[in-house]
Amino acid sequence: MSRELRTGIATVCLSGTLDDKLSAAAAAGFDGVEIFEPDLVASPMPPGEVRLRCADLGLSIDLYQPFRDLDSTDPDRFAANLRRAERKFDLMEELGADTVLVCSSVAHDAVADLDRLAGQLHALGERAGARGLRIAYEALAWGKEVSTYDRSWEAVRRADHPAVGLCLDSFHILSRGSDPAAIAGIPGDKLFFLQLADAPHLSMDVLQWSRHHRLFPGQGAFDLPGFLAPVLAAGYAGPLSLEVFNDVFRQADPDRAAIDAHRSLLALAEATSAPDPIAQPAPDVRGPAFVELSADDSLAPVLSALGFARTGTHRTKPVERWEQGAARILVNRSGGPAAVAALAVESADPAAAARRAIRLDAKRLPREHGPAEADLAAVTAPDGTALFFCRTGNEDDWTGDFVPTGATADGIGITGIDHIGLAQPFDHFDEAALFYRTVLGLEPAAAGEFAAPFGLVRSRAVADPHRRIRLALTVSLLRRGEWAPGVSEPQYIALAVDDLLAAAQAARAAGAPLLAVPDNYYADLDARLDLPAGRLAAYRELGVLHEHTAEGDYLQACTEVLGGRVFLALVQRLGGHDGYGWTDAPVRMAAHRRRRLARTHVPA
Amino acid sequence: MSRELRTGIATVCLSGTLDDKLSAAAAAGFDGVEIFEPDLVASPMPPGEVRLRCADLGLSIDLYQPFRDLDSTDPDRFAANLRRAERKFDLMEELGADTVLVCSSVAHDAVADLDRLAGQLHALGERAGARGLRIAYEALAWGKEVSTYDRSWEAVRRADHPAVGLCLDSFHILSRGSDPAAIAGIPGDKLFFLQLADAPHLSMDVLQWSRHHRLFPGQGAFDLPGFLAPVLAAGYAGPLSLEVFNDVFRQADPDRAAIDAHRSLLALAEATSAPDPIAQPAPDVRGPAFVELSADDSLAPVLSALGFARTGTHRTKPVERWEQGAARILVNRSGGPAAVAALAVESADPAAAARRAIRLDAKRLPREHGPAEADLAAVTAPDGTALFFCRTGNEDDWTGDFVPTGATADGIGITGIDHIGLAQPFDHFDEAALFYRTVLGLEPAAAGEFAAPFGLVRSRAVADPHRRIRLALTVSLLRRGEWAPGVSEPQYIALAVDDLLAAAQAARAAGAPLLAVPDNYYADLDARLDLPAGRLAAYRELGVLHEHTAEGDYLQACTEVLGGRVFLALVQRLGGHDGYGWTDAPVRMAAHRRRRLARTHVPA
Repeated sequence: MSRELRTGIATVCLSGTLDDKLSAAAAAGFDGVEIFEPDLVASPMPPGEVRLRCADLGLSIDLYQPFRDLDSTDPDRFAANLRRAERKFDLMEELGADTVLVCSSVAHDAVADLDRLAGQLHALGERAGARGLRIAYEALAWGKEVSTYDRSWEAVRRADHPAVGLCLDSFHILSRGSDPAAIAGIPGDKLFFLQLADAPHLSMDVLQWSRHHRLFPGQGAFDLPGFLAPVLAAGYAGPLSLEVFNDVFRQADPDRAAIDAHRSLLALAEATSAPDPIAQPAPDVRGPAFVELSADDSLAPVLSALGFARTGTHRTKPVERWEQGAARILVNRSGGPAAVAALAVESADPAAAARRAIRLDAKRLPREHGPAEADLAAVTAPDGTALFFCRTGNEDDWTGDFVPTGATADGIGITGIDHIGLAQPFDHFDEAALFYRTVLGLEPAAAGEFAAPFGLVRSRAVADPHRRIRLALTVSLLRRGEWAPGVSEPQYIALAVDDLLAAAQAARAAGAPLLAVPDNYYADLDARLDLPAGRLAAYRELGVLHEHTAEGDYLQACTEVLGGRVFLALVQRLGGHDGYGWTDAPVRMAAHRRRRLARTHVPA
Repeated sequence: MSRELRTGIATVCLSGTLDDKLSAAAAAGFDGVEIFEPDLVASPMPPGEVRLRCADLGLSIDLYQPFRDLDSTDPDRFAANLRRAERKFDLMEELGADTVLVCSSVAHDAVADLDRLAGQLHALGERAGARGLRIAYEALAWGKEVSTYDRSWEAVRRADHPAVGLCLDSFHILSRGSDPAAIAGIPGDKLFFLQLADAPHLSMDVLQWSRHHRLFPGQGAFDLPGFLAPVLAAGYAGPLSLEVFNDVFRQADPDRAAIDAHRSLLALAEATSAPDPIAQPAPDVRGPAFVELSADDSLAPVLSALGFARTGTHRTKPVERWEQGAARILVNRSGGPAAVAALAVESADPAAAARRAIRLDAKRLPREHGPAEADLAAVTAPDGTALFFCRTGNEDDWTGDFVPTGATADGIGITGIDHIGLAQPFDHFDEAALFYRTVLGLEPAAAGEFAAPFGLVRSRAVADPHRRIRLALTVSLLRRGEWAPGVSEPQYIALAVDDLLAAAQAARAAGAPLLAVPDNYYADLDARLDLPAGRLAAYRELGVLHEHTAEGDYLQACTEVLGGRVFLALVQRLGGHDGYGWTDAPVRMAAHRRRRLARTHVPA
């Protein structure tokens, strides 16, 4: 981040006590915090102690917030509000905070007349200024008389007091569909504070939207770079500070949420070309180099049946290399249940990509490697997956770590890895999506929601523009309880083929454990798509799922879950289909669950 | 339920496989089911087997649903849709289902012209009728050309075919604010099917509202009795069938959800005065007779300090009776952590009230009682609390089970039990609210949401009209994970006093462990309410929380959490305050958590 732009976070973004929140913000590298009043009110730390604690942690207190319902058409009430403000000024002096957020009134007695409102802001400014404090006035999107930034700016302009300026909040502005361009015309020294939040597009009451569904920048649908640009153009010199009300973050580990939050600001600064952004551009990813699975002995015969050849064995570790077309899978028999252990991506400059990832708050992965082995640049993703950057064919090539077996195989037509499916832990879905996007330089792709047999599931894909690398992320919409445990959704590798029926037929003939799909699915498919009888019979025989949309078709045949939490899928895309077969996911998930229940003898 | 009115439930209401859902529906006492197509498609049971399974379970298959987007302005597409329908008719014949739900089209090619639409419905009716099947046409609230019941009725009327009738869904009608009164004028034999769902009032996209937030009747804000009355008046003779899409129910234990669902229909029938409703009127509850706490030895000194006298010991069980004013607390030392074990309510006819509870699917509580002891009528609430009905002062009085100690105490001014706070398990909040309301004949009171230190909390109170009995229910908005466990919210008994400061002072003097509240809270209270300095000092000294609203004031002083998951509170209501102090709950919860952390030496 630049020397000029500082990062901040409102304590309301994070779970826990005030002390938990301050510690988490500092550990994540934030420069300052906004103290959210209810966090202070519930805290046993007196304001002076909070001041010392923040100083110890290297955090500035950039804002005290919120002060609600200042202005009033009732003079007595306005006088009471000024008294209330004076008490808060006392507190701010103890805290060492010089700016307070005053948000537009939602009360029945809110002042509609802009000159009268400006007069009341001026009166408060007089009192604040006398103490060396500042008022940052903000238009709530649901304010009674002031709900847009241009109106709040007009009130501040007419207040005409050096201690009265504006607070801009991206949510309040973008949720109303306001164009932020005109912000560039506001004098920079009147922009006292900037609060940043993203959000998904939702058609709902804006107050509820704001209170429950805000996200960190880059996790939602708002154009935050497009918002930040005019603010910086205006000359804003305060911190980029996050104010995100989110139901999940409010009950998740604050240390992790703070890192997620900090990463979002770094990525935003990069995207905005803010002064002195992170030097490296997004890595030029060129597809998966390999996927590493931890596995037991049951995986090798399945890979064989799917036409893979075991082309190498690692010089020092119990790892095998399997290949077919451009698809490379490493099988690590070090122990642990079958799972996706690592994803390696081809990168033009692996070391630079890793350095950039670490600047984006990714955790460096400590690795052992022998003297003759490649030192792959690696970090850990929020879901625990190791992420390697490499450049296959380079002199310092990872392939050199393997002793070639000389084995080859005809294959069944697998050309490469279509995508990797990674089920996410409940608290970290948005974090993971932002992590993979920013660290790999991907873009948001399809997003959806489907009704799995044991609860709803959210899904979101991230991919590069050329679709050389795709990740499909899923999470249960609600954390599952005892009835339907959340760990039931497996990870998978989707393998691209050009002729799904031929490939699945060959795999089946070679003994691959293809997942059986209920006849009822094919009866419905027939009713919907009127497929040729022969094709339908082949589907039924091989367990093929067929998603048809306006943009094309997505065919897949999945294996059973293999010894842990992983399965493999053969995938064929027809037409311009850019999705992930999610309309068929409930059927696939029910079938997988049945197989596992049958194997473990747990009654359905 | 009456002999005429049958109960039904759509499989989409419940979690699990189709088999899980059918078993749950049958066990809960439903007469029939609607088969939701995706449940069948994902099931390995062929339709004929589903038919047999339902027959075995004593369930009729009342509806197959949904058939989407029938009508089309494109003749080729309409022909394809008729073909699709024929395939579904094949399936219905195998299933033994004679009615299919056809919902209004949401497609771009939906037919706007009512006569053309009626013609297409007629054409489908011809094909259905030829097989002895029926079409129940439903207006989706978000249908492209047909979104209201009067328009769907007009289409059906013009279709003029004996196999084409109407399906009414309370959500689609009430979510749009339509007046259901005119339904009474529709010929009863054209009302082929009735789907019932409640919902909270939400200001959001109606499709999302419908897909995520429906509730069982009596759990939301819709007037279901007012909806059902004109449907019955029209002569509808089919089942009362539930179609509820709800994120929580979709991942909760289907056996429990089905009981909750069935209860909702029984209560609705009672409220609607449907033919042959449950005979007994709602019980005439007259307040709590007692609350029983399981506890260890640490509770007795706290009760003493709060001015309670130990007035009796149970003849055969390790249970003590403590009294002050009308507040009676039984302390059961049988073991287990401190918790609310039972609630006894005064009832004019305890046996009748218990019979009615059991007819409302409450589970009878098996109890041991000695030959000379009262046989209290008892059931178990969804949260595990035992619920007794009794009539203190009656000949068969529960007080006779206790040997009087002769002890008395001056007391500290506690006059009775204001309310009981019961934290609920995540999956069962709406179930619990409906249970307590219907079984005790209470009404919905305050409802809210507050930001606790470790996540948001939903709250809802149920109370009788005279406020003699109040229950405050809470649940975390999201199921908590490892960071913030959901079990942290304690239960409590709120004890009514007329002079909170005097009572708290006396309790403190006697050694009651009153909860300390942070000074920051009082600084904020002072800023907001400008209280006399002496009063504020007393608050601070005693840990008083003061909620001020337009309707009055709510003062409370809480004890620490006592040895498990229970605390006691002194409560004073001023003016017409009818709430539960929820704006102060975050401060109280943070303070309670601090105390427990301090005691258990878990680092914050």
